[in-house]
Amino acid sequence: MTHDNRAPGAPVLLTDLYQLTMVTAYHALDMERAAVFEFFVRKLPGNRGFLVAAGLEQALDYLETVHFDADELRWLESTGRFRPEALQRLASLRFTGDVDAMPEGSVFFAGEPILRVTAPLPEAQLVESRLINLLNFQSMIATKAARCRIAAGTRRLADFGLRRAQGAEAGLLAARACYLAGFDSTATVEAGRLFGIPLTGTMAHSFIQAHDNEVAAFRAFARIHPRGVTLLIDTYDTLRAAHEVVALCREGVPVDAVRLDSGDLAALSRAVRAILDAAGCGSVRIVASGNLDECEIERLTSVGSPIDSFGVGTRLDVSADAPYLDCVYKIQEYAGRARRKRSAGKATWPGRKQVSREYGPDGRMLADTIALVDESVPGKPLLQPVMRQGRRLPQPSLGQSREHAGREIAALPEGCRHLTGPQPLVPLISAGLRAAAERVDREFP
Amino acid sequence: MTHDNRAPGAPVLLTDLYQLTMVTAYHALDMERAAVFEFFVRKLPGNRGFLVAAGLEQALDYLETVHFDADELRWLESTGRFRPEALQRLASLRFTGDVDAMPEGSVFFAGEPILRVTAPLPEAQLVESRLINLLNFQSMIATKAARCRIAAGTRRLADFGLRRAQGAEAGLLAARACYLAGFDSTATVEAGRLFGIPLTGTMAHSFIQAHDNEVAAFRAFARIHPRGVTLLIDTYDTLRAAHEVVALCREGVPVDAVRLDSGDLAALSRAVRAILDAAGCGSVRIVASGNLDECEIERLTSVGSPIDSFGVGTRLDVSADAPYLDCVYKIQEYAGRARRKRSAGKATWPGRKQVSREYGPDGRMLADTIALVDESVPGKPLLQPVMRQGRRLPQPSLGQSREHAGREIAALPEGCRHLTGPQPLVPLISAGLRAAAERVDREFP
Repeated sequence: MTHDNRAPGAPVLLTDLYQLTMVTAYHALDMERAAVFEFFVRKLPGNRGFLVAAGLEQALDYLETVHFDADELRWLESTGRFRPEALQRLASLRFTGDVDAMPEGSVFFAGEPILRVTAPLPEAQLVESRLINLLNFQSMIATKAARCRIAAGTRRLADFGLRRAQGAEAGLLAARACYLAGFDSTATVEAGRLFGIPLTGTMAHSFIQAHDNEVAAFRAFARIHPRGVTLLIDTYDTLRAAHEVVALCREGVPVDAVRLDSGDLAALSRAVRAILDAAGCGSVRIVASGNLDECEIERLTSVGSPIDSFGVGTRLDVSADAPYLDCVYKIQEYAGRARRKRSAGKATWPGRKQVSREYGPDGRMLADTIALVDESVPGKPLLQPVMRQGRRLPQPSLGQSREHAGREIAALPEGCRHLTGPQPLVPLISAGLRAAAERVDREFP
Repeated sequence: MTHDNRAPGAPVLLTDLYQLTMVTAYHALDMERAAVFEFFVRKLPGNRGFLVAAGLEQALDYLETVHFDADELRWLESTGRFRPEALQRLASLRFTGDVDAMPEGSVFFAGEPILRVTAPLPEAQLVESRLINLLNFQSMIATKAARCRIAAGTRRLADFGLRRAQGAEAGLLAARACYLAGFDSTATVEAGRLFGIPLTGTMAHSFIQAHDNEVAAFRAFARIHPRGVTLLIDTYDTLRAAHEVVALCREGVPVDAVRLDSGDLAALSRAVRAILDAAGCGSVRIVASGNLDECEIERLTSVGSPIDSFGVGTRLDVSADAPYLDCVYKIQEYAGRARRKRSAGKATWPGRKQVSREYGPDGRMLADTIALVDESVPGKPLLQPVMRQGRRLPQPSLGQSREHAGREIAALPEGCRHLTGPQPLVPLISAGLRAAAERVDREFP
């Protein structure tokens, strides 16, 4: 077990009121037999040919620690919504169930459960809101980051998105999800501290502006950071600043890189590269940032922009073109009987399920099958035990999950990798699962 | 001063590395004179005719408490990036500056500063990432929520978005921003506890599915909650369930409302209303949820759907059509001299500014002017002192801010209120500000 990728938890009351209403009803009704819930994405957002599973580590942290403390119980009492005996039951509630899941960094597709909870019904119900909240966000960001990695090839990628991430936790966990999916670094210091992610940071325009002129700012920054600096060169006039950088290099100032943050990045990167190279500053790298996403990175690289490193921010950390997944956590079985809903457009496949994946001779993914756990289906089963009786089993480190994600992304069929108009794998539904759905519909008319 | 709308803070290391790099450089360079930074939105997202300011309370909390603790300093030391004297300076760093801001709930437009920080340069710089992170998110959500309020008229609105909000804090602060902008309630329990927001909650499909049949589930739920229930009726067959509800009402089961969560909400609400009314169940209200946003609410109300209450979730809590604001926190003055950047497409107006608003005889907003603070400009000045020397001044309660937001939204020009193709106010730029920009460009060539 590793502890290198924990994040702060959320209080148990960071949940929907109806979870508490239902949990206390289940207690009162003595409905505490084993339930099976599964988390899956109903359909992929537009332009997504695959998804990357992330957030399991935080989900397990949550399940291991979730409880009601005395203050929370007193506050619940003060609302007048809960009877004393209901609050007593909440006081002793812990998560004691089992979890099976795809390892973080795994590729998955529409309808495939990536996490299955088996626990007494009240426990399995209580944790719904936060589990969705954790798995939705990190999987969405890991997917977006994987698309950036595909677009960037071997160029370096840094997460710059904290400031416009949707809140503190989003900024922190986005950094983690990006690194998991193949980014090299983040600017978010706390993510470096908590998860061991390499940090990146340079200077802002304000640093230039606070000085009387740009060269003075460059010089001062390099004096304070003598081991090497990245200089931001677009505050006033990018090309003029590139010539200033050349002059500094000739004086022996250790300039590692220059950063472009505005304007036509393709044209400016070419012009700046030419200025640097003509002056013998070939070792000064070019970092580009400003309104980037995977499509813009692909465009810049496709026209041969001499950019060594991309800083990707806002559009990555909020997954701007697809800011949520159509994901759910649904009851599939209770008290030994499979269940499903049939709501218009939201029907589910019943029972506890496994996803099996077949690979072609080239090592690429060929086909996935969603089946009942006890069916015999070809391929490698993707959901593995990760928690038993409320205690987590040994988990890979964030670095190991990152390597796994790299292998998964490399094994994607070509059609899944396209940034626009992708062809996602469509999982097969096993005969056993289809039969189970018919049986359930007869049992729950 | 009230304490009813605090949220948990974020650690000081939840920032971009370059803030620490710059702050330590400013300390080393003895650049600690007063700087002025302003937070503003460069341009409104598509389909936004106005924005609603939110997040100030959390921003002030952050500024009042931000500091480096011993563990954080030890970790920074362990990175090898900072010299001992730099860390010593960080250890004693507190925010001691002044803040002027538009009150929460105020309407604002492109280019208008809603918050101005005046503080020694290292302090003003340090807080950039988190201030943007807080003000961007809540203002964006308050704006989306205000649009829902415009669409819903006097119908009730509840925030259901926690599960697909981008992380824990996003869910929590989205609930606050929605309430501020006119929502009636939230499902997020912790937001009820921290902010005193009224809570809403019913049952999930899993509750129905865990029972042997739907009627048994309805009956059990009502038995546990004898003061009245909202029953979810779309798990299997909505119209059949509506008839079941009628039968229960006739038995004396206290049904407050039914909830529709899928299908054609306009058609189903009419059909369910007819079934209920024909049976004398006119007092049973209809709650609708499922993929709602302001445009869908407007569509449903425009066709006369008999929906009493809307539960709005994912698309609200992530502001799905505009998941970030193009917002910045920019240095405008240092050591008594105005500054600005001229980067392509990102140039700023220099100096410390005020926004003045003129109203028409009908009480509607007529024109805003952005000017230097010491210019004489017609209209009401919108930025007010909220913090002096690092201590907050008395602030309105969340309820008072909510009333202010209601008045602000009511005073919007009609063209700003349109959900599609709105005509936002375009603030005037004062003569003094234009002259200042020319002067700064001469001073910082």
